[in-house]
Amino acid sequence: MSAATGTQPGPLTRADLAAATGADVREAVRAGRWTRATHGLARGRVQANLAIVPEAYAYDFLLFAQRNPKPCPIIEVTDTGDPEPRHCAPGADIRTDLPGYRVFRDGRMVEERRDIKDLWRRDHVAFLVGCSNSMDEVLESAGIPQRHLEQEDGRISVYTSSIPCRPAGRLHGPVVVTMRPIPAHRVEDAYAITRRYPLAHGAPVHVGPAAEIGIPDLSKVEWGRFNPLRDGEVPVFWACGVTPQAIAIAAGVPEMITHAAGHMFVTDLQLAETRS
Amino acid sequence: MSAATGTQPGPLTRADLAAATGADVREAVRAGRWTRATHGLARGRVQANLAIVPEAYAYDFLLFAQRNPKPCPIIEVTDTGDPEPRHCAPGADIRTDLPGYRVFRDGRMVEERRDIKDLWRRDHVAFLVGCSNSMDEVLESAGIPQRHLEQEDGRISVYTSSIPCRPAGRLHGPVVVTMRPIPAHRVEDAYAITRRYPLAHGAPVHVGPAAEIGIPDLSKVEWGRFNPLRDGEVPVFWACGVTPQAIAIAAGVPEMITHAAGHMFVTDLQLAETRS
Repeated sequence: MSAATGTQPGPLTRADLAAATGADVREAVRAGRWTRATHGLARGRVQANLAIVPEAYAYDFLLFAQRNPKPCPIIEVTDTGDPEPRHCAPGADIRTDLPGYRVFRDGRMVEERRDIKDLWRRDHVAFLVGCSNSMDEVLESAGIPQRHLEQEDGRISVYTSSIPCRPAGRLHGPVVVTMRPIPAHRVEDAYAITRRYPLAHGAPVHVGPAAEIGIPDLSKVEWGRFNPLRDGEVPVFWACGVTPQAIAIAAGVPEMITHAAGHMFVTDLQLAETRS
Repeated sequence: MSAATGTQPGPLTRADLAAATGADVREAVRAGRWTRATHGLARGRVQANLAIVPEAYAYDFLLFAQRNPKPCPIIEVTDTGDPEPRHCAPGADIRTDLPGYRVFRDGRMVEERRDIKDLWRRDHVAFLVGCSNSMDEVLESAGIPQRHLEQEDGRISVYTSSIPCRPAGRLHGPVVVTMRPIPAHRVEDAYAITRRYPLAHGAPVHVGPAAEIGIPDLSKVEWGRFNPLRDGEVPVFWACGVTPQAIAIAAGVPEMITHAAGHMFVTDLQLAETRS
Protein backbone atom coordinates (compact mmCIF):
# COMPACT_ATOMS: atom_id res chain seq x y z
CA MET A 1 0.00 0.00 0.00
CA SER A 2 1.08 3.53 -0.64
CA ALA A 3 2.04 6.00 2.07
CA ALA A 4 -1.36 7.62 1.56
CA THR A 5 -3.26 4.66 2.94
CA GLY A 6 -0.76 3.71 5.66
CA THR A 7 0.01 0.33 7.15
CA GLN A 8 -2.31 0.52 10.15
CA PRO A 9 -5.70 -1.13 9.70
CA GLY A 10 -8.87 0.87 10.21
CA PRO A 11 -11.30 2.93 8.21
CA LEU A 12 -10.04 5.42 5.67
CA THR A 13 -11.35 8.80 4.56
CA ARG A 14 -12.04 9.86 1.01
CA ALA A 15 -9.08 12.22 1.27
CA ASP A 16 -6.81 9.30 2.24
CA LEU A 17 -7.60 7.57 -1.03
CA ALA A 18 -7.86 10.55 -3.38
CA ALA A 19 -4.25 10.21 -4.50
CA ALA A 20 -4.10 6.42 -4.08
CA THR A 21 -3.51 4.01 -6.95
CA GLY A 22 -6.22 1.72 -8.28
CA ALA A 23 -4.48 -1.19 -6.54
CA ASP A 24 -4.50 0.73 -3.24
CA VAL A 25 -8.24 1.31 -3.46
CA ARG A 26 -8.93 -2.31 -4.35
CA GLU A 27 -6.81 -3.50 -1.41
CA ALA A 28 -8.63 -1.15 0.94
CA VAL A 29 -11.98 -2.45 -0.33
CA ARG A 30 -10.90 -6.08 -0.03
CA ALA A 31 -9.70 -5.47 3.54
CA GLY A 32 -13.02 -3.91 4.48
CA ARG A 33 -11.41 -0.51 5.02
CA TRP A 34 -13.49 1.17 2.29
CA THR A 35 -17.20 0.35 1.97
CA ARG A 36 -18.65 3.49 0.40
CA ALA A 37 -19.07 5.00 -3.07
CA THR A 38 -15.84 5.43 -5.01
CA HIS A 39 -16.18 8.90 -6.56
CA GLY A 40 -13.09 10.99 -5.97
CA LEU A 41 -10.87 7.98 -5.18
CA ALA A 42 -7.64 7.24 -7.07
CA ARG A 43 -8.05 10.37 -9.10
CA GLY A 44 -6.79 10.05 -12.65
CA ARG A 45 -7.67 6.33 -12.84
CA VAL A 46 -10.50 4.91 -14.90
CA GLN A 47 -13.42 3.61 -12.83
CA ALA A 48 -15.78 0.94 -14.11
CA ASN A 49 -19.33 -0.34 -13.92
CA LEU A 50 -19.61 -4.11 -13.52
CA ALA A 51 -21.96 -6.57 -15.20
CA ILE A 52 -21.44 -10.31 -14.73
CA VAL A 53 -23.52 -12.70 -16.80
CA PRO A 54 -23.40 -16.45 -17.47
CA GLU A 55 -21.44 -17.41 -20.58
CA ALA A 56 -24.73 -18.27 -22.29
CA TYR A 57 -25.50 -14.53 -22.28
CA ALA A 58 -21.96 -13.29 -22.91
CA TYR A 59 -22.22 -13.03 -26.69
CA ASP A 60 -25.49 -11.13 -26.52
CA PHE A 61 -24.00 -8.80 -23.92
CA LEU A 62 -20.79 -8.14 -25.83
CA LEU A 63 -22.72 -7.55 -29.05
CA PHE A 64 -25.08 -5.25 -27.16
CA ALA A 65 -22.09 -3.26 -25.92
CA GLN A 66 -20.60 -3.11 -29.41
CA ARG A 67 -23.87 -1.71 -30.72
CA ASN A 68 -24.30 0.73 -27.85
CA PRO A 69 -20.83 2.14 -27.18
CA LYS A 70 -22.04 5.30 -25.47
CA PRO A 71 -23.85 3.62 -22.56
CA CYS A 72 -21.61 0.52 -22.63
CA PRO A 73 -17.99 1.36 -23.54
CA ILE A 74 -16.13 -1.87 -22.80
CA ILE A 75 -12.95 -1.56 -20.75
CA GLU A 76 -12.37 -5.29 -20.34
CA VAL A 77 -14.07 -8.66 -20.59
CA THR A 78 -12.63 -11.39 -18.37
CA ASP A 79 -12.02 -14.89 -19.62
CA THR A 80 -14.91 -17.20 -18.75
CA GLY A 81 -14.57 -18.28 -15.10
CA ASP A 82 -11.57 -16.03 -14.43
CA PRO A 83 -12.31 -13.37 -11.78
CA GLU A 84 -9.13 -11.40 -12.55
CA PRO A 85 -9.28 -8.48 -15.00
CA ARG A 86 -5.77 -9.12 -16.24
CA HIS A 87 -5.60 -6.18 -18.60
CA CYS A 88 -6.87 -3.22 -16.60
CA ALA A 89 -6.14 -4.46 -13.06
CA PRO A 90 -3.67 -7.37 -12.84
CA GLY A 91 -3.95 -9.13 -9.48
CA ALA A 92 -7.46 -7.81 -8.80
CA ASP A 93 -10.41 -10.03 -7.91
CA ILE A 94 -13.74 -9.00 -9.33
CA ARG A 95 -15.55 -10.95 -6.57
CA THR A 96 -14.18 -8.87 -3.67
CA ASP A 97 -12.73 -5.62 -4.97
CA LEU A 98 -15.88 -3.56 -5.36
CA PRO A 99 -17.40 -2.02 -2.22
CA GLY A 100 -20.90 -3.17 -3.16
CA TYR A 101 -22.75 -5.52 -5.50
CA ARG A 102 -26.31 -6.03 -6.72
CA VAL A 103 -27.80 -9.33 -7.83
CA PHE A 104 -30.51 -9.36 -10.49
CA ARG A 105 -32.49 -12.53 -11.19
CA ASP A 106 -35.12 -12.84 -13.89
CA GLY A 107 -35.11 -9.08 -14.36
CA ARG A 108 -35.51 -8.17 -10.67
CA MET A 109 -32.95 -6.84 -8.19
CA VAL A 110 -33.04 -9.42 -5.40
CA GLU A 111 -30.06 -8.65 -3.19
CA GLU A 112 -27.29 -6.18 -2.32
CA ARG A 113 -23.99 -7.61 -1.03
CA ARG A 114 -20.47 -6.73 0.06
CA ASP A 115 -18.83 -9.53 -1.90
CA ILE A 116 -19.87 -12.28 -4.30
CA LYS A 117 -17.28 -14.96 -3.49
CA ASP A 118 -19.94 -17.64 -2.98
CA LEU A 119 -21.94 -16.62 -6.07
CA TRP A 120 -19.10 -16.73 -8.63
CA ARG A 121 -19.22 -19.70 -11.00
CA ARG A 122 -16.97 -21.17 -13.65
CA ASP A 123 -19.37 -20.06 -16.37
CA HIS A 124 -19.38 -16.40 -15.31
CA VAL A 125 -18.02 -13.63 -17.51
CA ALA A 126 -17.36 -10.17 -16.07
CA PHE A 127 -17.78 -7.07 -18.20
CA LEU A 128 -16.17 -3.83 -17.01
CA VAL A 129 -17.93 -0.85 -18.56
CA GLY A 130 -16.72 2.76 -18.52
CA CYS A 131 -18.12 5.08 -15.86
CA SER A 132 -18.85 8.77 -15.66
CA ASN A 133 -17.01 9.08 -12.33
CA SER A 134 -14.01 9.35 -14.64
CA MET A 135 -15.70 12.22 -16.45
CA ASP A 136 -16.28 14.23 -13.27
CA GLU A 137 -12.56 14.83 -12.95
CA VAL A 138 -12.16 15.92 -16.53
CA LEU A 139 -14.99 18.43 -16.26
CA GLU A 140 -13.82 19.68 -12.87
CA SER A 141 -10.32 20.27 -14.10
CA ALA A 142 -11.79 22.40 -16.90
CA GLY A 143 -13.53 24.50 -14.24
CA ILE A 144 -17.00 23.16 -15.03
CA PRO A 145 -18.82 22.74 -11.71
CA GLN A 146 -20.15 19.31 -10.76
CA ARG A 147 -23.22 19.88 -8.63
CA HIS A 148 -23.51 16.28 -7.41
CA LEU A 149 -20.04 16.44 -5.87
CA GLU A 150 -21.00 19.31 -3.58
CA GLN A 151 -22.35 16.72 -1.15
CA GLU A 152 -20.11 14.03 0.29
CA ASP A 153 -22.13 11.12 -1.05
CA GLY A 154 -21.58 12.38 -4.61
CA ARG A 155 -24.90 11.02 -5.86
CA ILE A 156 -25.62 12.09 -9.42
CA SER A 157 -29.11 12.31 -10.96
CA VAL A 158 -29.93 9.21 -13.01
CA TYR A 159 -32.95 8.62 -15.24
CA THR A 160 -34.31 6.08 -17.68
CA SER A 161 -34.64 7.88 -21.01
CA SER A 162 -36.92 7.12 -23.95
CA ILE A 163 -33.85 6.68 -26.20
CA PRO A 164 -33.81 3.01 -27.20
CA CYS A 165 -30.62 0.98 -27.20
CA ARG A 166 -29.93 -0.96 -30.38
CA PRO A 167 -31.03 -4.49 -29.43
CA ALA A 168 -28.72 -7.51 -29.61
CA GLY A 169 -29.97 -11.08 -29.38
CA ARG A 170 -32.20 -11.34 -26.31
CA LEU A 171 -31.13 -7.95 -24.93
CA HIS A 172 -33.04 -4.72 -25.38
CA GLY A 173 -34.07 -1.70 -23.37
CA PRO A 174 -33.63 2.04 -22.85
CA VAL A 175 -30.51 4.16 -22.50
CA VAL A 176 -30.06 5.23 -18.88
CA VAL A 177 -28.69 8.76 -18.53
CA THR A 178 -27.00 10.93 -15.94
CA MET A 179 -27.89 14.64 -15.76
CA ARG A 180 -25.46 17.39 -14.85
CA PRO A 181 -26.59 21.01 -14.53
CA ILE A 182 -24.07 22.96 -16.67
CA PRO A 183 -23.86 26.76 -16.98
CA ALA A 184 -25.16 27.62 -20.45
CA HIS A 185 -21.90 29.25 -21.52
CA ARG A 186 -19.93 26.07 -20.69
CA VAL A 187 -22.16 23.55 -22.47
CA GLU A 188 -20.11 23.66 -25.67
CA ASP A 189 -16.91 23.11 -23.68
CA ALA A 190 -18.45 20.21 -21.77
CA TYR A 191 -19.41 18.63 -25.09
CA ALA A 192 -15.98 19.12 -26.68
CA ILE A 193 -14.12 17.85 -23.61
CA THR A 194 -16.15 14.73 -22.92
CA ARG A 195 -16.33 13.56 -26.53
CA ARG A 196 -12.60 12.84 -26.29
CA TYR A 197 -13.18 10.28 -23.52
CA PRO A 198 -15.12 7.41 -25.11
CA LEU A 199 -14.42 5.12 -22.12
CA ALA A 200 -16.19 7.64 -19.88
CA HIS A 201 -19.31 7.61 -22.14
CA GLY A 202 -18.05 10.30 -24.52
CA ALA A 203 -20.18 13.25 -25.65
CA PRO A 204 -23.62 13.99 -24.19
CA VAL A 205 -26.60 12.19 -25.72
CA HIS A 206 -28.91 15.14 -25.13
CA VAL A 207 -28.75 18.81 -24.16
CA GLY A 208 -31.77 20.76 -22.95
CA PRO A 209 -35.41 19.90 -22.23
CA ALA A 210 -35.67 16.58 -20.41
CA ALA A 211 -39.12 15.90 -21.85
CA GLU A 212 -37.54 15.47 -25.29
CA ILE A 213 -35.92 12.24 -24.07
CA GLY A 214 -38.93 10.99 -22.14
CA ILE A 215 -38.18 12.40 -18.70
CA PRO A 216 -41.32 14.27 -17.60
CA ASP A 217 -40.03 15.57 -14.26
CA LEU A 218 -36.33 16.03 -13.46
CA SER A 219 -37.02 16.03 -9.73
CA LYS A 220 -38.12 12.38 -9.94
CA VAL A 221 -34.84 10.49 -10.32
CA GLU A 222 -34.73 6.74 -10.87
CA TRP A 223 -31.32 6.30 -9.22
CA GLY A 224 -29.21 8.77 -7.21
CA ARG A 225 -30.49 12.17 -6.14
CA PHE A 226 -32.01 15.17 -7.88
CA ASN A 227 -29.40 17.88 -8.13
CA PRO A 228 -31.42 21.03 -8.94
CA LEU A 229 -30.55 23.44 -11.70
CA ARG A 230 -29.66 27.01 -10.84
CA ASP A 231 -30.26 30.15 -12.90
CA GLY A 232 -28.47 30.06 -16.23
CA GLU A 233 -27.88 26.32 -16.14
CA VAL A 234 -28.92 23.77 -18.76
CA PRO A 235 -29.53 20.08 -18.07
CA VAL A 236 -26.97 18.01 -19.98
CA PHE A 237 -27.44 14.25 -20.29
CA TRP A 238 -24.76 11.61 -20.76
CA ALA A 239 -25.27 7.89 -21.33
CA CYS A 240 -24.76 5.95 -18.11
CA GLY A 241 -23.22 2.58 -17.24
CA VAL A 242 -26.31 1.70 -15.24
CA THR A 243 -27.85 0.87 -18.63
CA PRO A 244 -26.99 -2.86 -18.27
CA GLN A 245 -29.13 -2.95 -15.12
CA ALA A 246 -32.03 -1.44 -17.06
CA ILE A 247 -31.44 -4.08 -19.74
CA ALA A 248 -31.48 -6.86 -17.15
CA ILE A 249 -34.85 -5.54 -16.01
CA ALA A 250 -36.32 -4.85 -19.47
CA ALA A 251 -35.19 -8.15 -20.98
CA GLY A 252 -35.72 -10.31 -17.88
CA VAL A 253 -32.14 -11.57 -17.95
CA PRO A 254 -32.01 -14.76 -15.81
CA GLU A 255 -28.92 -13.63 -13.88
CA MET A 256 -26.81 -10.48 -13.81
CA ILE A 257 -24.52 -9.31 -11.01
CA THR A 258 -23.56 -5.64 -11.02
CA HIS A 259 -21.89 -3.02 -8.84
CA ALA A 260 -24.10 -1.23 -6.30
CA ALA A 261 -24.91 2.37 -7.23
CA GLY A 262 -21.75 4.48 -7.10
CA HIS A 263 -19.65 1.59 -5.75
CA MET A 264 -17.40 1.12 -8.75
CA PHE A 265 -14.41 -1.02 -9.69
CA VAL A 266 -11.25 1.12 -9.75
CA THR A 267 -8.82 0.08 -12.48
CA ASP A 268 -5.12 0.79 -12.94
CA LEU A 269 -5.73 2.54 -16.28
CA GLN A 270 -4.77 6.19 -16.51
CA LEU A 271 -7.72 8.22 -17.72
CA ALA A 272 -5.42 10.54 -19.67
CA GLU A 273 -4.21 7.59 -21.74
CA THR A 274 -7.73 6.75 -22.88
CA ARG A 275 -8.21 10.21 -24.42
CA SER A 276 -8.95 9.87 -28.11
CA MET B 1 -27.77 4.49 -59.50
CA SER B 2 -26.12 7.86 -59.63
CA ALA B 3 -25.37 9.74 -62.83
CA ALA B 4 -21.73 8.70 -62.39
CA THR B 5 -22.44 5.05 -63.02
CA GLY B 6 -25.06 5.55 -65.72
CA THR B 7 -28.05 3.44 -66.61
CA GLN B 8 -26.47 1.40 -69.40
CA PRO B 9 -25.08 -1.98 -68.35
CA GLY B 10 -21.44 -2.83 -68.96
CA PRO B 11 -18.12 -2.63 -67.20
CA LEU B 12 -17.18 0.46 -65.26
CA THR B 13 -13.88 2.21 -64.70
CA ARG B 14 -12.38 3.17 -61.36
CA ALA B 15 -12.98 6.79 -62.28
CA ASP B 16 -16.69 6.05 -62.87
CA LEU B 17 -17.04 4.90 -59.28
CA ALA B 18 -14.66 7.29 -57.52
CA ALA B 19 -17.47 9.68 -56.63
CA ALA B 20 -20.16 7.00 -56.33
CA THR B 21 -22.01 6.23 -53.12
CA GLY B 22 -21.46 3.02 -51.19
CA ALA B 23 -24.82 1.78 -52.47
CA ASP B 24 -23.76 2.53 -56.07
CA VAL B 25 -20.60 0.46 -55.68
CA ARG B 26 -22.46 -2.42 -54.08
CA GLU B 27 -25.04 -2.39 -56.88
CA ALA B 28 -22.28 -2.39 -59.49
CA VAL B 29 -20.61 -5.33 -57.78
CA ARG B 30 -23.87 -7.27 -57.46
CA ALA B 31 -24.61 -6.69 -61.16
CA GLY B 32 -21.16 -7.99 -62.14
CA ARG B 33 -20.13 -4.57 -63.40
CA TRP B 34 -17.27 -4.27 -60.91
CA THR B 35 -15.06 -7.28 -60.15
CA ARG B 36 -11.76 -5.74 -59.10
CA ALA B 37 -10.17 -4.27 -55.95
CA THR B 38 -12.12 -1.42 -54.36
CA HIS B 39 -9.42 1.11 -53.47
CA GLY B 40 -10.32 4.58 -54.67
CA LEU B 41 -14.04 3.78 -55.05
CA ALA B 42 -16.79 5.77 -53.29
CA ARG B 43 -14.23 8.12 -51.86
CA GLY B 44 -15.11 9.40 -48.42
CA ARG B 45 -16.95 6.20 -47.48
CA VAL B 46 -15.68 3.65 -44.98
CA GLN B 47 -14.55 0.37 -46.57
CA ALA B 48 -14.52 -2.89 -44.63
CA ASN B 49 -12.78 -6.23 -44.32
CA LEU B 50 -15.14 -9.19 -43.98
CA ALA B 51 -14.95 -12.21 -41.70
CA ILE B 52 -17.87 -14.63 -41.51
CA VAL B 53 -17.81 -17.35 -38.87
CA PRO B 54 -20.36 -19.82 -37.52
CA GLU B 55 -22.23 -18.61 -34.44
CA ALA B 56 -20.26 -21.12 -32.35
CA TYR B 57 -17.18 -18.96 -33.00
CA ALA B 58 -18.89 -15.58 -32.89
CA TYR B 59 -18.26 -14.86 -29.20
CA ASP B 60 -14.57 -15.73 -29.49
CA PHE B 61 -14.30 -13.55 -32.59
CA LEU B 62 -16.08 -10.56 -31.07
CA LEU B 63 -14.02 -10.84 -27.88
CA PHE B 64 -10.88 -11.13 -30.00
CA ALA B 65 -11.82 -7.94 -31.81
CA GLN B 66 -12.58 -6.17 -28.52
CA ARG B 67 -9.12 -7.12 -27.26
CA ASN B 68 -7.38 -6.20 -30.51
CA PRO B 69 -9.02 -2.99 -31.68
CA LYS B 70 -6.13 -1.87 -33.86
CA PRO B 71 -6.15 -4.83 -36.26
CA CYS B 72 -9.89 -5.53 -35.77
CA PRO B 73 -11.91 -2.32 -35.32
CA ILE B 74 -15.51 -3.51 -35.57
CA ILE B 75 -17.80 -1.53 -37.87
CA GLU B 76 -20.77 -3.88 -37.61
CA VAL B 77 -21.76 -7.39 -36.61
CA THR B 78 -24.81 -8.78 -38.38
CA ASP B 79 -27.53 -10.66 -36.53
CA THR B 80 -27.01 -14.41 -36.74
CA GLY B 81 -28.24 -15.64 -40.13
CA ASP B 82 -29.00 -12.15 -41.44
CA PRO B 83 -26.87 -11.23 -44.48
CA GLU B 84 -27.84 -7.54 -44.32
CA PRO B 85 -25.56 -5.08 -42.47
CA ARG B 86 -28.51 -2.95 -41.38
CA HIS B 87 -26.48 -0.29 -39.65
CA CYS B 88 -23.69 0.60 -42.08
CA ALA B 89 -25.33 -0.46 -45.35
CA PRO B 90 -29.11 -0.90 -45.21
CA GLY B 91 -30.33 -2.98 -48.14
CA ALA B 92 -26.93 -4.54 -48.80
CA ASP B 93 -26.32 -8.29 -49.05
CA ILE B 94 -23.06 -9.51 -47.61
CA ARG B 95 -23.24 -12.65 -49.80
CA THR B 96 -23.07 -10.81 -53.11
CA ASP B 97 -21.86 -7.25 -52.57
CA LEU B 98 -18.11 -7.82 -52.35
CA PRO B 99 -16.19 -8.34 -55.61
CA GLY B 100 -14.32 -11.33 -54.21
CA TYR B 101 -14.36 -13.83 -51.34
CA ARG B 102 -12.02 -16.35 -49.79
CA VAL B 103 -13.06 -19.50 -47.96
CA PHE B 104 -10.89 -20.85 -45.15
CA ARG B 105 -11.51 -24.32 -43.73
CA ASP B 106 -9.59 -25.82 -40.82
CA GLY B 107 -7.02 -23.04 -41.08
CA ARG B 108 -6.39 -23.33 -44.83
CA MET B 109 -7.56 -21.12 -47.69
CA VAL B 110 -9.44 -23.54 -49.92
CA GLU B 111 -11.26 -21.40 -52.46
CA GLU B 112 -11.71 -17.94 -54.00
CA ARG B 113 -15.19 -17.00 -55.23
CA ARG B 114 -17.25 -14.22 -56.73
CA ASP B 115 -20.22 -14.73 -54.39
CA ILE B 116 -21.14 -16.95 -51.46
CA LYS B 117 -24.88 -17.28 -51.96
CA ASP B 118 -24.78 -21.08 -51.73
CA LEU B 119 -22.40 -21.11 -48.75
CA TRP B 120 -24.36 -18.80 -46.44
CA ARG B 121 -26.10 -20.55 -43.55
CA ARG B 122 -28.56 -19.60 -40.85
CA ASP B 123 -25.83 -19.91 -38.20
CA HIS B 124 -23.45 -17.49 -39.94
CA VAL B 125 -22.42 -14.18 -38.40
CA ALA B 126 -20.69 -11.53 -40.52
CA PHE B 127 -18.13 -9.20 -38.98
CA LEU B 128 -17.23 -6.03 -40.86
CA VAL B 129 -13.82 -4.78 -39.78
CA GLY B 130 -12.27 -1.39 -40.58
CA CYS B 131 -9.88 -1.19 -43.52
CA SER B 132 -6.89 0.94 -44.34
CA ASN B 133 -8.25 1.76 -47.81
CA SER B 134 -10.11 4.40 -45.82
CA MET B 135 -6.81 5.65 -44.46
CA ASP B 136 -5.27 6.11 -47.91
CA GLU B 137 -7.62 8.99 -48.61
CA VAL B 138 -6.95 10.71 -45.33
CA LEU B 139 -3.19 10.55 -45.87
CA GLU B 140 -3.44 11.60 -49.51
CA SER B 141 -5.55 14.61 -48.68
CA ALA B 142 -2.81 15.68 -46.24
CA GLY B 143 -0.32 15.51 -49.10
CA ILE B 144 1.40 12.36 -47.83
CA PRO B 145 2.19 10.20 -50.87
CA GLN B 146 0.79 6.67 -51.05
CA ARG B 147 3.29 4.61 -53.01
CA HIS B 148 1.00 1.62 -53.50
CA LEU B 149 -1.57 3.77 -55.28
CA GLU B 150 0.90 4.76 -57.99
CA GLN B 151 -0.03 1.54 -59.79
CA GLU B 152 -3.59 0.84 -60.86
CA ASP B 153 -3.97 -2.35 -58.85
CA GLY B 154 -3.25 -0.42 -55.66
CA ARG B 155 -1.64 -3.37 -53.93
CA ILE B 156 -0.13 -2.42 -50.59
CA SER B 157 2.72 -4.33 -48.86
CA VAL B 158 1.37 -6.71 -46.22
CA TYR B 159 3.37 -8.76 -43.69
CA THR B 160 2.83 -11.03 -40.73
CA SER B 161 4.54 -9.34 -37.77
CA SER B 162 5.91 -10.86 -34.59
CA ILE B 163 3.53 -8.69 -32.55
CA PRO B 164 1.11 -11.10 -30.87
CA CYS B 165 -2.60 -10.40 -30.72
CA ARG B 166 -4.18 -10.72 -27.30
CA PRO B 167 -5.81 -14.17 -27.47
CA ALA B 168 -9.54 -14.73 -26.90
CA GLY B 169 -11.02 -18.17 -26.35
CA ARG B 170 -9.80 -20.43 -29.16
CA LEU B 171 -8.42 -17.54 -31.23
CA HIS B 172 -4.80 -16.44 -31.25
CA GLY B 173 -2.15 -15.36 -33.73
CA PRO B 174 -0.01 -12.49 -34.96
CA VAL B 175 -0.89 -8.93 -35.93
CA VAL B 176 -0.78 -8.55 -39.71
CA VAL B 177 0.56 -5.16 -40.80
CA THR B 178 0.59 -2.96 -43.88
CA MET B 179 3.71 -0.95 -44.70
CA ARG B 180 3.71 2.49 -46.27
CA PRO B 181 6.95 4.27 -47.20
CA ILE B 182 6.57 7.75 -45.65
CA PRO B 183 8.99 10.68 -46.08
CA ALA B 184 10.80 11.06 -42.74
CA HIS B 185 9.59 14.62 -42.25
CA ARG B 186 5.93 13.51 -42.60
CA VAL B 187 6.00 10.55 -40.22
CA GLU B 188 4.81 12.59 -37.27
CA ASP B 189 1.94 14.01 -39.35
CA ALA B 190 0.97 10.54 -40.55
CA TYR B 191 0.86 9.37 -36.94
CA ALA B 192 -1.20 12.33 -35.73
CA ILE B 193 -3.66 12.10 -38.63
CA THR B 194 -4.32 8.38 -38.56
CA ARG B 195 -4.70 8.09 -34.79
CA ARG B 196 -7.94 10.04 -35.16
CA TYR B 197 -9.44 7.30 -37.36
CA PRO B 198 -9.83 4.25 -35.11
CA LEU B 199 -12.12 2.52 -37.67
CA ALA B 200 -9.30 2.71 -40.22
CA HIS B 201 -6.85 1.01 -37.75
CA GLY B 202 -5.78 4.23 -36.02
CA ALA B 203 -2.14 5.11 -35.31
CA PRO B 204 0.78 3.06 -36.63
CA VAL B 205 1.87 0.04 -34.57
CA HIS B 206 5.52 0.49 -35.54
CA VAL B 207 7.80 3.04 -37.19
CA GLY B 208 11.25 2.15 -38.52
CA PRO B 209 13.28 -1.04 -38.77
CA ALA B 210 11.08 -3.92 -39.91
CA ALA B 211 13.29 -6.46 -38.13
CA GLU B 212 12.08 -5.06 -34.79
CA ILE B 213 8.64 -6.51 -35.50
CA GLY B 214 9.89 -9.78 -36.94
CA ILE B 215 10.02 -8.91 -40.64
CA PRO B 216 13.50 -9.89 -41.85
CA ASP B 217 13.16 -8.72 -45.44
CA LEU B 218 10.71 -6.06 -46.59
CA SER B 219 10.95 -7.23 -50.18
CA LYS B 220 9.31 -10.53 -49.22
CA VAL B 221 5.65 -9.62 -48.74
CA GLU B 222 3.09 -12.11 -47.50
CA TRP B 223 0.17 -10.43 -49.28
CA GLY B 224 0.10 -7.65 -51.86
CA ARG B 225 3.27 -6.27 -53.46
CA PHE B 226 6.53 -4.81 -52.20
CA ASN B 227 6.45 -1.05 -52.66
CA PRO B 228 10.12 -0.02 -52.32
CA LEU B 229 11.31 2.81 -50.12
CA ARG B 230 12.99 5.81 -51.71
CA ASP B 231 15.71 8.01 -50.22
CA GLY B 232 14.57 9.79 -47.08
CA GLU B 233 11.61 7.49 -46.51
CA VAL B 234 10.85 5.48 -43.40
CA PRO B 235 8.76 2.27 -43.34
CA VAL B 236 5.62 2.88 -41.26
CA PHE B 237 3.46 -0.06 -40.23
CA TRP B 238 -0.24 -0.06 -39.46
CA ALA B 239 -2.33 -2.96 -38.16
CA CYS B 240 -4.27 -4.62 -40.99
CA GLY B 241 -7.72 -6.15 -41.33
CA VAL B 242 -6.17 -9.25 -42.89
CA THR B 243 -5.36 -10.23 -39.29
CA PRO B 244 -8.53 -12.38 -39.02
CA GLN B 245 -7.25 -14.49 -41.93
CA ALA B 246 -3.95 -14.98 -40.09
CA ILE B 247 -5.96 -15.97 -37.01
CA ALA B 248 -8.00 -18.48 -39.03
CA ILE B 249 -4.70 -20.02 -40.14
CA ALA B 250 -2.90 -19.85 -36.77
CA ALA B 251 -5.84 -21.16 -34.76
CA GLY B 252 -7.14 -23.66 -37.33
CA VAL B 253 -10.61 -22.14 -37.32
CA PRO B 254 -13.02 -24.73 -38.83
CA GLU B 255 -14.67 -22.19 -41.14
CA MET B 256 -14.11 -18.53 -41.96
CA ILE B 257 -15.22 -16.69 -45.09
CA THR B 258 -13.44 -13.41 -45.84
CA HIS B 259 -13.08 -10.82 -48.59
CA ALA B 260 -10.45 -11.50 -51.26
CA ALA B 261 -7.35 -9.31 -50.96
CA GLY B 262 -8.26 -5.69 -51.71
CA HIS B 263 -11.85 -6.60 -52.64
CA MET B 264 -13.59 -4.87 -49.77
CA PHE B 265 -17.17 -4.20 -48.69
CA VAL B 266 -18.05 -0.54 -49.27
CA THR B 267 -20.34 0.88 -46.57
CA ASP B 268 -22.55 3.96 -46.52
CA LEU B 269 -20.67 5.42 -43.54
CA GLN B 270 -18.91 8.73 -44.05
CA LEU B 271 -15.29 8.41 -43.05
CA ALA B 272 -15.26 11.99 -41.74
CA GLU B 273 -17.99 11.09 -39.24
CA THR B 274 -15.88 8.33 -37.73
CA ARG B 275 -13.10 10.76 -36.83
CA SER B 276 -12.48 10.73 -33.09
